[in-house]
Amino acid sequence: METLISKFKKVAPKAALLMAVAAGAALQGCNKTGGDDSDKAVDSDAASAVYVAPGEHDELYSFLSGGFNGQMSVYGIPSGRLLKIIPVFSQFPENGYGYNEETKPMLQTSHGFVPWDDLHHPKLSRTDGMADGRWLFVNGNNTPRVARIDLKTFETVEIMEIPNSAGNHCSPYPTNNNEYVIAGTRFSVPLDMKGGTADVSMEEYKDKFRGSISFIKVDKEDGDMELDFQVLVPGFDYDLANGGKGPSNDWVFFTTYNTEKSATLKELGASQNDRDYLAAINWKLAAKYAAEGKAHEMPANYYHNKLDHGSFQAKSEVKKTVRYLLPEECPGMMYLLPAPKSPHGIDVDPTGEYMVVNGKLASSLPVFSFSKMEEAIKNKDFDGEVNGIPVFKYESVLYGEVKEPGLGPLHTEFDGKGNAYSTMFVSSEVVKWNVKDLKVTDRIPVYYSPGHLMIPGGDTEKPYGKYLVVMNKITKDRFLPTGPELMHSAQLIDISGEKMKMLLDFPTVAEPHYAQAIKADLVAPNSVKFHKLDENTHPEAVKNEKDVSVTRKGKTVTVKMTAIRSHLTPDNIEGIQVGDTVLFHVTNLEQDWDVPHGFAVMGANNAETLIMPGATQTLRWVPKQEGVFPFYCTDFCSALHQEMQGYVRVSPKGSNVPIKFRMGEKRPVPPATASVN
Amino acid sequence: METLISKFKKVAPKAALLMAVAAGAALQGCNKTGGDDSDKAVDSDAASAVYVAPGEHDELYSFLSGGFNGQMSVYGIPSGRLLKIIPVFSQFPENGYGYNEETKPMLQTSHGFVPWDDLHHPKLSRTDGMADGRWLFVNGNNTPRVARIDLKTFETVEIMEIPNSAGNHCSPYPTNNNEYVIAGTRFSVPLDMKGGTADVSMEEYKDKFRGSISFIKVDKEDGDMELDFQVLVPGFDYDLANGGKGPSNDWVFFTTYNTEKSATLKELGASQNDRDYLAAINWKLAAKYAAEGKAHEMPANYYHNKLDHGSFQAKSEVKKTVRYLLPEECPGMMYLLPAPKSPHGIDVDPTGEYMVVNGKLASSLPVFSFSKMEEAIKNKDFDGEVNGIPVFKYESVLYGEVKEPGLGPLHTEFDGKGNAYSTMFVSSEVVKWNVKDLKVTDRIPVYYSPGHLMIPGGDTEKPYGKYLVVMNKITKDRFLPTGPELMHSAQLIDISGEKMKMLLDFPTVAEPHYAQAIKADLVAPNSVKFHKLDENTHPEAVKNEKDVSVTRKGKTVTVKMTAIRSHLTPDNIEGIQVGDTVLFHVTNLEQDWDVPHGFAVMGANNAETLIMPGATQTLRWVPKQEGVFPFYCTDFCSALHQEMQGYVRVSPKGSNVPIKFRMGEKRPVPPATASVN
Repeated sequence: METLISKFKKVAPKAALLMAVAAGAALQGCNKTGGDDSDKAVDSDAASAVYVAPGEHDELYSFLSGGFNGQMSVYGIPSGRLLKIIPVFSQFPENGYGYNEETKPMLQTSHGFVPWDDLHHPKLSRTDGMADGRWLFVNGNNTPRVARIDLKTFETVEIMEIPNSAGNHCSPYPTNNNEYVIAGTRFSVPLDMKGGTADVSMEEYKDKFRGSISFIKVDKEDGDMELDFQVLVPGFDYDLANGGKGPSNDWVFFTTYNTEKSATLKELGASQNDRDYLAAINWKLAAKYAAEGKAHEMPANYYHNKLDHGSFQAKSEVKKTVRYLLPEECPGMMYLLPAPKSPHGIDVDPTGEYMVVNGKLASSLPVFSFSKMEEAIKNKDFDGEVNGIPVFKYESVLYGEVKEPGLGPLHTEFDGKGNAYSTMFVSSEVVKWNVKDLKVTDRIPVYYSPGHLMIPGGDTEKPYGKYLVVMNKITKDRFLPTGPELMHSAQLIDISGEKMKMLLDFPTVAEPHYAQAIKADLVAPNSVKFHKLDENTHPEAVKNEKDVSVTRKGKTVTVKMTAIRSHLTPDNIEGIQVGDTVLFHVTNLEQDWDVPHGFAVMGANNAETLIMPGATQTLRWVPKQEGVFPFYCTDFCSALHQEMQGYVRVSPKGSNVPIKFRMGEKRPVPPATASVN
Repeated sequence: METLISKFKKVAPKAALLMAVAAGAALQGCNKTGGDDSDKAVDSDAASAVYVAPGEHDELYSFLSGGFNGQMSVYGIPSGRLLKIIPVFSQFPENGYGYNEETKPMLQTSHGFVPWDDLHHPKLSRTDGMADGRWLFVNGNNTPRVARIDLKTFETVEIMEIPNSAGNHCSPYPTNNNEYVIAGTRFSVPLDMKGGTADVSMEEYKDKFRGSISFIKVDKEDGDMELDFQVLVPGFDYDLANGGKGPSNDWVFFTTYNTEKSATLKELGASQNDRDYLAAINWKLAAKYAAEGKAHEMPANYYHNKLDHGSFQAKSEVKKTVRYLLPEECPGMMYLLPAPKSPHGIDVDPTGEYMVVNGKLASSLPVFSFSKMEEAIKNKDFDGEVNGIPVFKYESVLYGEVKEPGLGPLHTEFDGKGNAYSTMFVSSEVVKWNVKDLKVTDRIPVYYSPGHLMIPGGDTEKPYGKYLVVMNKITKDRFLPTGPELMHSAQLIDISGEKMKMLLDFPTVAEPHYAQAIKADLVAPNSVKFHKLDENTHPEAVKNEKDVSVTRKGKTVTVKMTAIRSHLTPDNIEGIQVGDTVLFHVTNLEQDWDVPHGFAVMGANNAETLIMPGATQTLRWVPKQEGVFPFYCTDFCSALHQEMQGYVRVSPKGSNVPIKFRMGEKRPVPPATASVN
């Protein structure tokens, strides 16, 4: 297993070489002609393949992670059109997520309110190893968290912090029936054995730093998550994970790097050993150990935030303990497979027999065999151990190696027809190879520096092998230039034939790290169109205009308001004072699809909030100036939208202007629970 | 001039009718077949027309306002691909805008830090009446502000608050050589004559509420804005504006509604009068009056925030006075043209002779004649006055009416070949008509409820009449469903032939109110690829790894850090204490296109910040827990990106752990000002 580094070792000092690898992404230069495309030669087959005519729908939903924007984005395939951004870990001024009172608790953590995260990996919930279209699990890579999105409403409904973790990167991986969602720490840290990290010097890395893998239970009916137990693992970095399937159903696999346990200079320090590891954990056995009393318990302090469906309100619960297993006390639960230096992705083929380790610095792609691993366990075919965890002999678990597939392999997916597709970050290509004979059969250049790739269902037992989406890290000249900061870029490739065919470049918001895709008919029919006003249990909801109110209690003024085309009720409010806390609880009385109303007040030290039909949302305002301030509907809703407006009067502190509001008794009052159209 | 309302008056009570108009948008129902499109019939002409092959570029930049997301979005035409979101008025977790120390001052206002706004209208800067591709002016509709985006960097570089305004909707309209950018208030408010609003009851609307139109000077070289003077106008609502051209070059026109001066129930109260007004202001004469001493001065208190190009730092200045003119003291400066009830858009044709008023409740589209208006001024052909402002006789200024163009006309643009195109909100169509003979020549259904439409250059003297983009307010079933909250939808129409041809539906982020488009070659060649490190004047920038530092001053710790593939320097920091304010000033040493680095620290009560090559950005962190916290690069930059990481140790308050940082002296140190590739 020759690595790029060892290859070059003879001719240049290591440091310079690492830089060359690091910089490799940019070596291709810029091959764009640019400018006007009036004389473009159109490939009409490709054009037709990606064209979704007005009024038609895309064939597939694809869910691309937003990376450093902290959100999920939904793209239609094959059109490449952005259909929605779903706010998850970051504030979203567009609809008030993380600003309004209902959703602020979603972003609470043990560190306080955290307005941002780095969302890496989406994984669809599974039934019998296949994506079932119910939920999407996603990870917060910075402040360790796992979130769940409900695909009936395309909303984030749950966010759970992960204790004993630092950078929740190899996460979240559901088992084949969502028995567990598994989340591994990226960085090891010195655990304080109270769920957090300890105040120790980085000099003590080798002795005191430790990793953790979390096993989160998922409720079969409603999807609610619960942290069942953790496995405390050696102080490596953990990069990516994937679950087994078929024969390997009970196992989950993790790539590791920095098995050198270097606390500094990681680009050198974590690249010393010729081999790092693929870690294998038998999650069923782990669960059994945990259930049978092998688990220890430690105090902890982590947030678990849930959005209540009926009231639209998020609530935080702080959890106070966490259970953990130690591998050295649980024989047969965890093993290490020697893997090429600093591996990135680990991908298990649809049969569950082959585990592909993408060694970013390696010149070959090793494929491990699950049946050989089982055999090696039986035969105790080990080559020592680390922290009590047996290490297999490389040859005893290796199926074979794909020789010189390209430079910088990062990720692999499968088409269900016996083929694998791997991204080569440094040589900027997708390489197709045969899983049985490990021969490369096709390669296609991609622009530039691909990270993840995704075949719809390509990580399940039955891939839908028609399209491949490759997510590139460098965009440079692929689209019209937009200054120094560019969108990332995805490319859609047709993989239905023997040779891959490039169909489309499409820009992607922020940085998609991974994606999932699913046939539209598994999601679309269940999509909720509006909330039923009758079922709205928000404590401040008003379901009829006659019940609106403005009341003062000390320095807090509560406004219960309604919105319906084309008025807000009440629309004149007086008696507010500078420094009051004003809570506008706005209920959207509409009962039809796609008639949101928005609510904002001039000079508000907050975002607006967008209110879906049937829902109630709350905007908090602390006026700083006296005067008269307009408020209005922010989402153009009708021909009289510009008239959907009111005023709030703010008097000085201590003023004797009484609370007063105008109901608008002369305006047309539609029946509160019926549609107006 | 029969209105919809007067038409229906005979058969139904007014209230019910207003509701019918208001709800009209939803009357079309849902005509989608939906589901799998495997048997779709592709219009290969349309498919080819919008297909931009991998490696090719779009023909045009289009700039769509983000509406309630507060940002601008850039779409490629004809592909409909989202090329960039430019943060303007709202926080943007994706790159740290409004979170990092450099950009936080951009969102400061007299109301404090305002994290959101409602961005409505983009207008490209002009030279000789044509878009010149230098800057984009945009408005904040909620908290009155005007911003300027520099199209060299696609960054917001200036935001100015507007005093005496409330809801800056009919804004910002540049004159034909950017002599002024003109911004009108949407809502009238009681002015306190100190730049803000007064604490008075809404009962006093008729006497005390007043509007204002602001005239902002633009520096010819660097685009810097300065509020020159305002015109205080009657207490109407002001909806949209547009500047004249050619013969009408010196004039700007505003639609008004609520000339009834109703403070409540606007959907009824502002729809009483059969006619509202089109206001016309001679801006050159106004400037002359202001220069010649007709201007009064009042105290004010408004923020003017600018981003410094060299240091990347935004700075706020608070302005303390504002000058104003009163129309009654400035003869010949302002006139009122009677217009159909509650008009929305006002659009001036490319010759500058015809002013089209889009009366949303009217059954005909009146077209006014500029030469007739000049004649009427000469002849004093008036029908009374309002607040000393002469009102023309309707017939004396009317060129003619487009009869029954459709229901709910909102906006009109022009193709430069004598045709106008108007959106019909209620009947959901775009209607083409001849500007000379006012005959309707074509109509095309659009989905659903169109607001603005845009022809590239369609508001200038020379439209580029190939495409039309219509921005629809209701999406419903046009794309795969994504729960109750849907993206808005635009449609691209080919207008090069006699009949319009629908090419493409594309979803748009938040709510585009208006758009501008420009040929790519007027912008692309000037697009900056990276910042020159040599020219970085940030006071905390570090241009060589050897100069990094960590220093404490009281409870503030200043970290001067560098980022280059694939390390952050320093990467181990100790001596921080709980409750410290830590300022990470990170300089990206790269000097190549599209190699940003991001910086985030675990548990940070802040977003990450994205740092473009050559730039310095600052993340503020107040740690709340002791322990060891990883930080890392958040934008996948190289094959060793996962190793681009460090740790910060946080000790308890009062700890005696000294400040200490590891430089990484063994790591490859590239020359600081040279590219690594």
